Parts: sequence; C-alpha cells; structure tokens
Amino acid sequence: MALEFKLSNQTEAGGRRAQIVLPHQTVETPVFMPVGTAGTVKAVPQDVLEALGAQIILGNTYHLYLRPGHEAIRRMGGLHRFISWPRAMLTDSGGFQVFSLSALRKVSDEGVRFRSHLDGSSHFFTPEHSMDVQIALGADIAMAFDECTEYPAERSRAEESLRLTMDWARRSLDHFRAHEEEVVWHAELGGKTQSLFGIVQGGMYADLRRESAERLVEMDFDGYAIGGLSVGEPRDATLEMISEVLPLLPKDKPRYVMGVGYPDEIEQYARMGVDMMDCVLPTRAARHGLLFTSEGRLNIKGKKYAEDQGPPDPACDCMVCRRYTRAYLRHLMHSGEALSATLNSIHNLAYYLGIMERVRKSLPGAAACTQS
Amino acid sequence: MALEFKLSNQTEAGGRRAQIVLPHQTVETPVFMPVGTAGTVKAVPQDVLEALGAQIILGNTYHLYLRPGHEAIRRMGGLHRFISWPRAMLTDSGGFQVFSLSALRKVSDEGVRFRSHLDGSSHFFTPEHSMDVQIALGADIAMAFDECTEYPAERSRAEESLRLTMDWARRSLDHFRAHEEEVVWHAELGGKTQSLFGIVQGGMYADLRRESAERLVEMDFDGYAIGGLSVGEPRDATLEMISEVLPLLPKDKPRYVMGVGYPDEIEQYARMGVDMMDCVLPTRAARHGLLFTSEGRLNIKGKKYAEDQGPPDPACDCMVCRRYTRAYLRHLMHSGEALSATLNSIHNLAYYLGIMERVRKSLPGAAACTQS
Repeated sequence: MALEFKLSNQTEAGGRRAQIVLPHQTVETPVFMPVGTAGTVKAVPQDVLEALGAQIILGNTYHLYLRPGHEAIRRMGGLHRFISWPRAMLTDSGGFQVFSLSALRKVSDEGVRFRSHLDGSSHFFTPEHSMDVQIALGADIAMAFDECTEYPAERSRAEESLRLTMDWARRSLDHFRAHEEEVVWHAELGGKTQSLFGIVQGGMYADLRRESAERLVEMDFDGYAIGGLSVGEPRDATLEMISEVLPLLPKDKPRYVMGVGYPDEIEQYARMGVDMMDCVLPTRAARHGLLFTSEGRLNIKGKKYAEDQGPPDPACDCMVCRRYTRAYLRHLMHSGEALSATLNSIHNLAYYLGIMERVRKSLPGAAACTQS
Repeated sequence: MALEFKLSNQTEAGGRRAQIVLPHQTVETPVFMPVGTAGTVKAVPQDVLEALGAQIILGNTYHLYLRPGHEAIRRMGGLHRFISWPRAMLTDSGGFQVFSLSALRKVSDEGVRFRSHLDGSSHFFTPEHSMDVQIALGADIAMAFDECTEYPAERSRAEESLRLTMDWARRSLDHFRAHEEEVVWHAELGGKTQSLFGIVQGGMYADLRRESAERLVEMDFDGYAIGGLSVGEPRDATLEMISEVLPLLPKDKPRYVMGVGYPDEIEQYARMGVDMMDCVLPTRAARHGLLFTSEGRLNIKGKKYAEDQGPPDPACDCMVCRRYTRAYLRHLMHSGEALSATLNSIHNLAYYLGIMERVRKSLPGAAACTQS
C-alpha cells in the first residue's frame, strides 16, 4: 500500500489542506521539505529538525548513490535508519544532479552515462536503475527518472526532452510496481510500500506541459510533481506553467512543485493548491549569510549589524531568534565559525516551515471533511 | 568580591572536590572547560553545551580583541551577553596566542608588539592592556599576562622568560585591582567582580617552577594556574612540573592547569588536586575525525566503520551515541558535511565532561565539610 491522501475542501483559489499518510509519518500539507542532500540537512542536527517541526525531508539519490552507496544504505536498513530520521522522506530520481553536477553526460533513449563529480568514475543511470537505487534507499516517496529540460530551450528541444521524460516515466512506473515490495521496511511496516510520483516537464511551453500532465495522469502515479522550474526562467513563466498544470492533476493525489522558491513564492503556490515544495534556498542562503525575516531579506554580513543586539527577526520565535543577536550571528559569519551555518540555517528553516504552518492554519480544516 | 572557594577534604593523593562560586555560576570541581576560542565552542550551539553539563567555557582574548573587538563586546554588555552564555566563563590573557599565532612579535619589558594573523595590522599588548581587554570582556575569571616559555628552552632563556612573567604578573594584578569594579556587570550582579589568576611558568626547570609559584602566592591572586605545559615536552616532564608546583599553592584557592590534555591525563591531574583544566583537544580532534571513547581512540574515517551500525561509544549515553551510528559519522566526515564536526565535537565533549563527573563523584563530597 502506497500513500493515503486525506483532502479537505479547497478554497476558491484552489488552496487546500490535506494529510498525506506515508509509511513513516502523516504529513500535514501544504508542506515545505528541507533538502538533506547527502543524508543531512546541511549543518542542522536531526533533533533540531524535529524541534522545528520538519515533517518530511529530501535525500538526493545522485549523492547517496555515489557515497556511501545505495546498497550499503539498504544493508544498514535504509536511509531512515542510516541517518536516524524517523519521519517522512522523499528521494529525487538522481536526474537533476546528473544533469547539473556530473561531467561528460551522454544521453540516449536507454539512459544517461555520466562521470561522477567526486572521482570521475563512469556510471550509467536508466529509469530502471534509478528505481532500484531509490527502492534501496527506501524513502517514503520516490520520483520517476526524468530529464530536467534546460532553460531556455527551443520548442523542438523541449519536445524531444519531453518525449524522453514520458518514456522514462512509463519505464520508471513499470519497474517500480514490479519491485515495490523489495523495500527494506516492507514487512516491518505491515506491508506498506513507497509511493512513486511522476514529473511533469515541457519547458516553458504550456501545451507541452498540459500534454505531459495528461499522459502522466493516464499512467496513474501516486502523486504528481512539476519539475523543470526555477531553472532561470522569469517568475511569471513559473507561475504560468504551474497554473496550466494544476487543473489537470487529479484532486485526490498530492501535487509537488520541485525546487521552489522564495518565501513569497512558496506561500503563493501553496494558496493555489500546491501541496509540497522543496528548495535548497533557505539552507544555502543561510550559509552565505542571507536571512529571511518578516522584515525582508537581511544580509547578516552587513556592517550595520556589528553591534545590533536585536534578534535576527523580531517577529520570529525560533530557537535562534530567542537566544542570539544579529551582532553575534554577524561575528560568527565574519569569523568563519561553523556555528554560523548552523544558526543561520535553523532560522531560515524555521521561517520557511512557519510560512507553511500559517498557510495551513488559514486553509479550511482537514478534520471536518476528509476523503481518502 | 571575587570568587569564593568551598573545599571538601582532600584524598591522600591530593585529589579534592570543591565549589568555585563565580558571579555567573557556581562551578563544581574538578572541572573541564571547553574552549570557545572566538566566542563559540567550535561547531557546538550553546544550548547543547548546557545540555552536556558544561559549567564554564573559555574565551580567547587574542581572538576576541581582534574580532569583534573588546570595546564592542563591552558596549554589548560583555562576553556572556554577546554570545548568550549564562554560565561561567574564563578568558586567557592573550599571551599564548600572541606567541603562537601572530607574526613579527617583538617582546620588550614593556610588552609585546605583534601583527594580527588576520590582517597584518600592528598591535601592542602590555599586562595593563591585557587587563583592560579582559575587564571589557567581563569573563568570571581573567588571567595574568604571561610569556609562555617555549619548549625546549635553555635555562638562561627560561630564567629570563620567568623574570618577565613575574614582572608582568605584578603589573597585571596591580592594574586589575585598580580597575576591577569597571566590569560591565559589576552593579547588576550586586558588586561582584572578576577574579584574576596568576600563571606559574619556568619551563621544565623544577626550581624555577617552585620559585615562580612562591612569588605568585606572595602576590596573592584569586587562583593559580600552571602554564607552559603541553608545549611538546614528554609527559613525565608535564607530570613532574605539576607535582612540584601543586604543594606550593594555597589549599584554599583554585588550581588550574592550562591546555591539557588527553582523557587519561585530565583524570590523573584531577586526582592529584588540579581543580580546573581546559584543552582544545576534544573539539579539534573531533574536527579531524578522532573520537575519544571508553574503548580508546577511534578514527571515524576508517574503512572498517563503513557499515558499522554501533554507536561511536557503546558505553556513552550522550545525544550522539544515543542517535547516530559510526557508519553515519564516517559518511558525514567523508562527505565534508558540517554536521560531522558538530556531532563529533558533541561526543568528545560529553566524554571529557563525563570523565570529570566520574572523578567528582569518586572524591570526598563537598557537602559535609566545606570551608570558604
């Protein structure tokens, strides 16, 4: 059994509150998912993520496949146990990193040959192999293997890329269904299985996006993601693609927009009916000293904060804002201290998770009217 | 009013349990003090230090003077408030780092001219200036400005260095006593003041060490440290110098051996009657993947830990050993993840603080027989 989706009524704008019942955790949506690339949300200990209310985190298949290796992780009981994270997890397909990080990629209908960014070793990823790796990792949600169409892309290129992604989606799903009972916690969790999401591509061409969504829905995935956004396109293009696709996706399944975004974006998309989002921005920006606050973006390196004894965000109740000053965070950043990344990341994640909590509270409650 | 020292009976071997009543915290001794160089115990958040039971941490005067500057810290309410650490703190004099980190030092009877290791700027430290800086920082305990005699040192060099240190001790004490009421929390904490410790030097020459101790005791400091150890000398020399000096120090004042040591060393010295120790070893070794455990030293980088699902130390109850495996810590280290330094440091500090807790429990209780 894959996920169960309990949906409340939705607002006129499309926003909706729901519960995604996953093998390791029931996730309240709309939800923001911190990114834990190599099995760690960078610089933030797992108990802090729990205290922050993170319900589900991401793992990157490409990174974990290369190091420590998916077979090693399976032997150790799967990714949850390996990193000691008891709540929900999602793994991407590895596709995005193969295209963005690795060297000497060679794409064919069969799959992608690439060289590791770590040691130059040669690897071949196919939809089937991505499924095998993700089943070995054993996250609650796995993603179909896709090609993230670059931006900008000519129409012919976007069409060809979409053809590949649709073909790979079919192969991903077939292989996944044939092997879904092999996940390491299958028996332990009473016969539950992972869920597989399809990924809508099509570049910035609305008709290709619609075609992609319709074909994926026909295949009947457990949930649907919109990929290939936040790749450099203007924000109104992002919004247009999401607006075109959402109405075509089934109401009774989760909808996930991958790799977005700024605080106002994730609120906007959540209110349009997007259930799940992930982004490295809160943690990556944190490591560069950029804090997201109720007063806007704050670059903690600024000279004006040298003796500022206020909290990073006066409206924030997170463990960093309760204890530390802007002056101290600035000092840590300037001194190159490890604590800088930790504290900045904790605040930014608290800010992102807080946005989603506020959005959830403002949407019609899931308790009164549910469907599964 | 400086510190109050409440001493229990001591063992035949000299080991003793005591309480040092400091303005911000009553410290149970023997105590290990984690080093918080630039206002942070590297990679470990303050709430974790509290949970680990750290009673007192160090700040380095040299680092904090250069960045963010002692006057800025004073304006922000002192070091406790700046870094949000409510328990006890101790600052060193800056001398050790001036000699070990800075460039182009020029020592005269008056003081030391040196260039910052950060930006090459020129600075002049005198005993009086070190006191001014430490009073601005406002730790509970300040240290006299000394010259840490290098190892090895000819006798004539050790004699000359000791002459300087004794002269600077006198000047440190005079200046400190004249200005001790200027500490920023003086009124807020009911007229309490910082305490000043003298530092015994003399290289590896027992008679110079004895002379140094006797002259410092005559000056009447609030406590006494033994410096210039762990500078490369053989361990029996360290032990000999400590053994020579301890009997000459007043029983009713704290005794602090600076910059030691390995786990078995800190236990050994504590059982001889040393009340306070500090060392960067647990945190620095942690950042290089070296863990101290009940089974000995463990280099977490080792291939043999790749799939080791045991805790770092099976006998340890710390938050890292309760949650994470050796395999995961190895993965974090190999992946260059920030969480590696954090988790390794937390365990090593738990191990060091645990040793001192066990030693305290094994010594005659302080409750039955106290003197102040």
